[in-house]
Amino acid sequence: MENPSLHKAQISRYDQQEVMETDDFLVVEEPLEITISALESKPILHKKPVSITMRTPAHDKELAIGFLYGEGMLTSKNQIKNIRQEENKIDIVLHKGEHIDLKKLDRHFYTTSSCGVCGKASIESLEVTKPVVISPYKLSITTSTTLNLPDLLRKNQTLFTQTGGIHAAGLFSQDGHLLCLREDVGRHNAMDKLIGYYFLESNLPLDQSILVLSGRASFELLQKAIMAGIQIVISIGAPSSLALALSQKYNITLIGFVKGKRFNIYHGKQRIIL
Amino acid sequence: MENPSLHKAQISRYDQQEVMETDDFLVVEEPLEITISALESKPILHKKPVSITMRTPAHDKELAIGFLYGEGMLTSKNQIKNIRQEENKIDIVLHKGEHIDLKKLDRHFYTTSSCGVCGKASIESLEVTKPVVISPYKLSITTSTTLNLPDLLRKNQTLFTQTGGIHAAGLFSQDGHLLCLREDVGRHNAMDKLIGYYFLESNLPLDQSILVLSGRASFELLQKAIMAGIQIVISIGAPSSLALALSQKYNITLIGFVKGKRFNIYHGKQRIIL
Repeated sequence: MENPSLHKAQISRYDQQEVMETDDFLVVEEPLEITISALESKPILHKKPVSITMRTPAHDKELAIGFLYGEGMLTSKNQIKNIRQEENKIDIVLHKGEHIDLKKLDRHFYTTSSCGVCGKASIESLEVTKPVVISPYKLSITTSTTLNLPDLLRKNQTLFTQTGGIHAAGLFSQDGHLLCLREDVGRHNAMDKLIGYYFLESNLPLDQSILVLSGRASFELLQKAIMAGIQIVISIGAPSSLALALSQKYNITLIGFVKGKRFNIYHGKQRIIL
Repeated sequence: MENPSLHKAQISRYDQQEVMETDDFLVVEEPLEITISALESKPILHKKPVSITMRTPAHDKELAIGFLYGEGMLTSKNQIKNIRQEENKIDIVLHKGEHIDLKKLDRHFYTTSSCGVCGKASIESLEVTKPVVISPYKLSITTSTTLNLPDLLRKNQTLFTQTGGIHAAGLFSQDGHLLCLREDVGRHNAMDKLIGYYFLESNLPLDQSILVLSGRASFELLQKAIMAGIQIVISIGAPSSLALALSQKYNITLIGFVKGKRFNIYHGKQRIIL
């Protein structure tokens, strides 16, 4: 049986100046919409949306329940009549008489960049990205620059050096010079700071530069990169299935797992001078 | 001048069976509230909350602007009259006539577990944790168990082995046996899945067990741990300043940077058998 948490992809592996086509497994990243249904005074089921989170499919019921417990919204298993799931939608049905302070929830309309998906009214509208514009191949990167950039990012991460616990997003020129680096405890924030800098400099889009991420590449980071017109994304860690899907849809060159003399090319090999 | 991104803390470092008191730098994690002010038809400034995100102080204006750009809410610098900041609050003031679809925002009341802070009406109400209950010292862990657990977690991470790109939260018994492990592309989700499992088993609180986190320890993860009654948290990576603050407030034993024969004790040394 197929494992719903794993996505098999065809990638190119660069190692010691050789390129090899191979299969690879990416972790699946997919949205889960959590709703709560309560029987109010009349016997009508009121379904209320609570959260959309990007998650790896598996143990979805536990995820929904654990989230609601952690937010102080559920206190006992006895409140729950049943849990219904249909693909990426989970509905927690409460027993008659039980109710969660959903009105309180209604007033809470904050969004956050840490998932990049809150503030969206439905799973279908998760993508904030631009109308599909296939990026042209007007930018390229050499393999040696690709191999150098993670070290260069790390060397310029002053906060990482001191704490060991911080993410970074760095922008580099085509020939491998650091243009701007931002650090933050949240990788999405480091990315927002980087893009915000160029926005305030009236210097968008960033279609002549290369983005390097200190960690993994998620849907959200790819989305932010696409909004900023970035065509080449290098993540030191692994990309998720949805990051790959976005890179394919918008024709972004997505490189990951850069280590020593190796890296993986997930999409957009044409921009790499091999 | 003090660096607002760094928090100096007194920690205990365990190395090769010796414990040493030392200073350490943690990355600062603090909430940032982003609001937008627009002059509507009448010359009245309408301030609307947009987002609260947990971030590392520095480049806050860029963060707010980059976030709004990434969400498709800002398109040009010309829309912005000025940016006001007062500590952890940023207000983007738009030029007269400029407006962002704030009504659209009003309908978006989804929360997410990926920051653990959305859905909260103000910075002051960020903490969902229980009324302060100082955990007693009824649980303890040996140094050898502490050193073993990260390896044990990693060995049981089946998805990590295959993808290299996934977080885990694992619960262990006091003597170091794995009780439950959950993996997810989002560390908060792995934690929610773990807690959800015990909730559905009617097996909370988890005050007899040890939590091991594959990555860094954030405010959010500590919050979830506290809600579940966990007293010992081991993170393989670094904790943030706010994770430390929560561990102090709720008297949680917080261990980090477990590697080889070393680990750091950030709080609650009394539970460790040295």
